[in-house]
Amino acid sequence: MSSVFRASTRLRSAARLPAARALSTTASLRAEKPFFPNEPSAPSVSGSLPGPKNKAAAAELDEVFDVRSLNMLADYYQSVGNYIADLDGNKLLDVYAQIASIPVGYNNPHLKQVAASPEMACALINRPALGNFPSSDWAEILKTGVLRAAPKGLNQVFTAMAGSDANETAYKAAFMYYRQMQRGGVGADFSNDELLSTMNNQSPGSPHLSILSFKSAFHGRLFGSLSTTRSKPIHKLDIPAFDWPQAPFPQLKYPLEEHVQENTAEEQRCLAEVERLIKEFHNPVAAVVVEPIQSEGGDNHASPAFFQGLRDITKRTNVLFIVDEVQTGVGATGKFWAHDHWNLTSPPDMVTFSKKAQTAGYYYGNPALRPNKPYRQFNTWMGDPARALIFRGIIQEIERLDLVENTRTTGDYLYAGLAGLAQKYPEHFQNLRGKDHGTFIAWDTPKRDQFTAKAKSFGVNVGGCGPSAIRLRPMLVFQKHHADILLEKIEQIVQNI
Amino acid sequence: MSSVFRASTRLRSAARLPAARALSTTASLRAEKPFFPNEPSAPSVSGSLPGPKNKAAAAELDEVFDVRSLNMLADYYQSVGNYIADLDGNKLLDVYAQIASIPVGYNNPHLKQVAASPEMACALINRPALGNFPSSDWAEILKTGVLRAAPKGLNQVFTAMAGSDANETAYKAAFMYYRQMQRGGVGADFSNDELLSTMNNQSPGSPHLSILSFKSAFHGRLFGSLSTTRSKPIHKLDIPAFDWPQAPFPQLKYPLEEHVQENTAEEQRCLAEVERLIKEFHNPVAAVVVEPIQSEGGDNHASPAFFQGLRDITKRTNVLFIVDEVQTGVGATGKFWAHDHWNLTSPPDMVTFSKKAQTAGYYYGNPALRPNKPYRQFNTWMGDPARALIFRGIIQEIERLDLVENTRTTGDYLYAGLAGLAQKYPEHFQNLRGKDHGTFIAWDTPKRDQFTAKAKSFGVNVGGCGPSAIRLRPMLVFQKHHADILLEKIEQIVQNI
Repeated sequence: MSSVFRASTRLRSAARLPAARALSTTASLRAEKPFFPNEPSAPSVSGSLPGPKNKAAAAELDEVFDVRSLNMLADYYQSVGNYIADLDGNKLLDVYAQIASIPVGYNNPHLKQVAASPEMACALINRPALGNFPSSDWAEILKTGVLRAAPKGLNQVFTAMAGSDANETAYKAAFMYYRQMQRGGVGADFSNDELLSTMNNQSPGSPHLSILSFKSAFHGRLFGSLSTTRSKPIHKLDIPAFDWPQAPFPQLKYPLEEHVQENTAEEQRCLAEVERLIKEFHNPVAAVVVEPIQSEGGDNHASPAFFQGLRDITKRTNVLFIVDEVQTGVGATGKFWAHDHWNLTSPPDMVTFSKKAQTAGYYYGNPALRPNKPYRQFNTWMGDPARALIFRGIIQEIERLDLVENTRTTGDYLYAGLAGLAQKYPEHFQNLRGKDHGTFIAWDTPKRDQFTAKAKSFGVNVGGCGPSAIRLRPMLVFQKHHADILLEKIEQIVQNI
Repeated sequence: MSSVFRASTRLRSAARLPAARALSTTASLRAEKPFFPNEPSAPSVSGSLPGPKNKAAAAELDEVFDVRSLNMLADYYQSVGNYIADLDGNKLLDVYAQIASIPVGYNNPHLKQVAASPEMACALINRPALGNFPSSDWAEILKTGVLRAAPKGLNQVFTAMAGSDANETAYKAAFMYYRQMQRGGVGADFSNDELLSTMNNQSPGSPHLSILSFKSAFHGRLFGSLSTTRSKPIHKLDIPAFDWPQAPFPQLKYPLEEHVQENTAEEQRCLAEVERLIKEFHNPVAAVVVEPIQSEGGDNHASPAFFQGLRDITKRTNVLFIVDEVQTGVGATGKFWAHDHWNLTSPPDMVTFSKKAQTAGYYYGNPALRPNKPYRQFNTWMGDPARALIFRGIIQEIERLDLVENTRTTGDYLYAGLAGLAQKYPEHFQNLRGKDHGTFIAWDTPKRDQFTAKAKSFGVNVGGCGPSAIRLRPMLVFQKHHADILLEKIEQIVQNI
């Protein structure tokens, strides 16, 4: 173990905190001092959007690249902190942040140093096949980086490229583990029948097992992950899918404090259905996968009791419990991992990550989740050391500026402001949610698409999710003075639609 | 269109060559001058491998990362050109090259400049969601980079992260296209039944369609790509798979010139089976995917006539033809794309790439392969601009040093030397193959695993594939003086096993 990691371990055990929590309590609060002194003081937009240069550039790109999902072309050289610039000189306050992916601000000076380091050059130009030929400093990069952020109870990592393959490799680990248990443990070998049938994609070698996911869930768009995604038809249509089960996800009523009994009953109903499916579904369930907050599906929350219930059921039925923190992880909910809000009695079996980590993969704790033989969980690159170096830089920046704590307090401030707007404009703010979850805040509005479109002309880049939600996904460097601007702009937007 | 790309287009149309071919003919041959003057003159190994520092580092890494597939820990700072260094100061001639992934040598000086450029820093620290917020120079990066290498007839690209998702997104495009044709074209909308059933992973919304692949094929390890992979049980066991068909891949007899009739008959047999499966398989075939040379499966070749036959069958049956160039692409066969060897009468519908491109994705030509609506083929990152910049640098280096031509001539030289060894040691060299295919050369030997293990002590890093093949995968900067060393070492190895 490297000395840096030992130091971090000591720090944690002294405080009885997991690594990720220590990150939010080691520095003092500096929220009032701007993290980016060179940021614009406010958004600026001139003329209608997109401007002429952006239009021309989009037309050029369209020749070779599908631009129908284009939101805006960005000038990343001119973007700074919480502000994204376009080609026409407009600067927008960005509370969408590359679909919740930018953690520490555009052109963060510390990441600029990381990008200019000899380690980065070496990682970029000598890309290793990590499973075969890792660099001599790979252990140190993991221990001082991605593993420094490991959730409590999970000290192993499998590195991947993006959220979809992070989830799919976690699913593969679950299937291999499930069959290993069925065979009688790590020592049991494959049968001849298995070896032959799998080459024909047939059972028993390619078994009819399943992953249970939830209605409205989003876990990615490759074939396995898409089979667990249940967000919108447009994500799934025409793509063959596995016959895997979906359970209902609680549909909570807001404000929560006025619907305690109903919501508890709703969560119990969903938990009962999970247990029934695990016991009865015709393709046996190897794992349950769940997002702490269903993000693409509409920012659907459930209580810590619900997730503890899931943990209990999966323990009881010998099914693995995978928490998909691709969108919720790395600080945005005011804790490093959203599942830290649950106070689980035992950790998840696997936690997947991507987006704000700028790299991807899954954490796990149980060594039995390493398959019984090598090369079963393997691919050429198994992630990208260049991106692992960026994640290490992000973690350093989160620690230095205490950004999880910043997000917690700024989130509380922002939520209170939105609650005020919701009282004033109830027709525009329904089911405000995300209280005590940092800046991971959303609400429903019947004029959602008008809102997100109109927002740009007021200098705000904001995204939606689900059928009618506005989701806020600011960066971790979003501060109270940004919240003030955002609240003011939101009020102007709702007054103008 | 950017001016650089227009220039390239003129260059190509003048010569009636696709972009990728022009790359191999624009510069004069400089093969005899060393590309890396600072390379070691020969491998050096002291003591037994792994040495003490490598052993200690592997034990440290094992605490957090599965190292059972570890080949060696590398010191990439000390690696140069064709030589990979380890922690104990050993330097090995690397003809495995990160599983065929390093194109222009370790610590290539031009790539070092690319890594130090302002564009790279910007791409690393401001990672965009490319489908929504591409950078203003994304079109130029594509046109002067990845698209400059586009195969003949294909001028569109969908960018991805690695070989597996490159193939899976190509499969998704094929499925969406197939159903669109069934529905009656791009204007036809989805039925209510489709919209509802896909949310349950059921037909017709999630149709029972298939991708046809070949026995011994390797197309990746995620759930969809793994369903087309038919290399070894260890790659597939315990993972649920789609019920998709596999056709036999020709098993050619060597030397080719002595088995012309048999081999032709074998290829005809396989083609007939492909056509039968397309017509009869219970899950209709939307696309055929094939590697130009089955690489992981054992370096299995087929003739241009076979591939032209596949193109003809897929045209006749309205099935898409996907060529997986993940391992064969970017110069190693002595042409930029291996399928350039075939002289197809019409281009493949899609060509996938990764590995030596250091990024991934698929090319296509037909605009109808853009799905009828946005967000059907989409994900957060859709590749990595940082890696796209590296690919552009690789293409520049290939052009500057005429590396495709170098690989062609060095390959011929190496093949001739190996043919000599095969005559001298017939028990160690069976089915020598890859003639006229650059350095993409392989042979079978009953002592394969001993050979690859023993090679290290002679200073050579070399890999195997299939049940009994040695595969050579040198970089494109592998020159005749390297071939001389390699041939000498290979003779020593076979004398010692």
